[in-house]
Amino acid sequence: MEVFELIQGMARTDENLIRSADELDKAIDHIVQLIQDSCTLYFSDSYSSSAFLSISACEEVAKAHIGSLTDGKHPEKKGRNVFRDHKTKHAMAALPTVPISQRLEDALRKDELQRVMNMAQNAGFVQTRENALYFQREKGSLVIPSEKIDKNLARSLVLFAIEVFDDALVGMTNHSYEMDDITDALFEQIKNT
Amino acid sequence: MEVFELIQGMARTDENLIRSADELDKAIDHIVQLIQDSCTLYFSDSYSSSAFLSISACEEVAKAHIGSLTDGKHPEKKGRNVFRDHKTKHAMAALPTVPISQRLEDALRKDELQRVMNMAQNAGFVQTRENALYFQREKGSLVIPSEKIDKNLARSLVLFAIEVFDDALVGMTNHSYEMDDITDALFEQIKNT
Repeated sequence: MEVFELIQGMARTDENLIRSADELDKAIDHIVQLIQDSCTLYFSDSYSSSAFLSISACEEVAKAHIGSLTDGKHPEKKGRNVFRDHKTKHAMAALPTVPISQRLEDALRKDELQRVMNMAQNAGFVQTRENALYFQREKGSLVIPSEKIDKNLARSLVLFAIEVFDDALVGMTNHSYEMDDITDALFEQIKNT
Repeated sequence: MEVFELIQGMARTDENLIRSADELDKAIDHIVQLIQDSCTLYFSDSYSSSAFLSISACEEVAKAHIGSLTDGKHPEKKGRNVFRDHKTKHAMAALPTVPISQRLEDALRKDELQRVMNMAQNAGFVQTRENALYFQREKGSLVIPSEKIDKNLARSLVLFAIEVFDDALVGMTNHSYEMDDITDALFEQIKNT
């Protein structure tokens, strides 16, 4: 199901995931912490853990964004909640407004930005998330996260996560602007690596 | 099913997860990276992400340890693999030899050590892992990871993860001793916080 249809089809209830501006601010604090952690590990040259946390930040943005409208109960699959489905959260994070950002296009170049958008929209983040955390066998040999995630991918993912946050949540509360100062500064630092 | 029975019941095949000392060394490098990342975030006062990575390190230790004997196919549940089940991995990490460690008992005190062992053996790590990464509603209000994981719990979990690694994997290859020097130094640093 297309992600917009899915969101439109979700029931409007009084049981939304996020129920006040204060709650949204708490979620924003948590998301910015994840982005900061991702950057900390990126600057420590630990690219796979950084990538895992960038993807987690995208998931939490989607929950905070759409969670003001719904409790996440799946419109068709009984007992399922879209906020517990990685693939759906990734697609909900990768809104078409994200690649319009000029700073993101400048930092990633058009091809790389398109590649990351495509990964987020088409379940590529699901595999990348697993590859970033767990070792596994692949074509007869053992592969560890540091072999799957290089500096360039980690850089793309954290810049993408910052833009996803900025696009979906900044402007919704006064507090979001303060937190945006933190992530804007991180964007500039990472961009120049 | 008791974890020892489970391990004993797994089929011995030529398709083990880990098939050579070199592969084990790669897995060890990955695990030590996770422990280092957990410590980096702990020292940055980001306790929830640190806790998440400590639990992930325990999971990867269990995979590396038991994965030399089996491919992880569940003996009873067709199509299931124990290396993809968080609860089983946590129980496989919390071997009875872990709490015998004097340094761990000295650092955590007996009660706290028992509490962490109990969490690992009885699915408490499953909830802690989720609490450490995701915001959620709980009893009518929004709760974020920083409210669920405090410095003390993050400290206990990273010291526990280091001991789990030491207990299960150090001594199995020459390389494991070198990596143990890194985690021993981290243990001492964290202990004194």
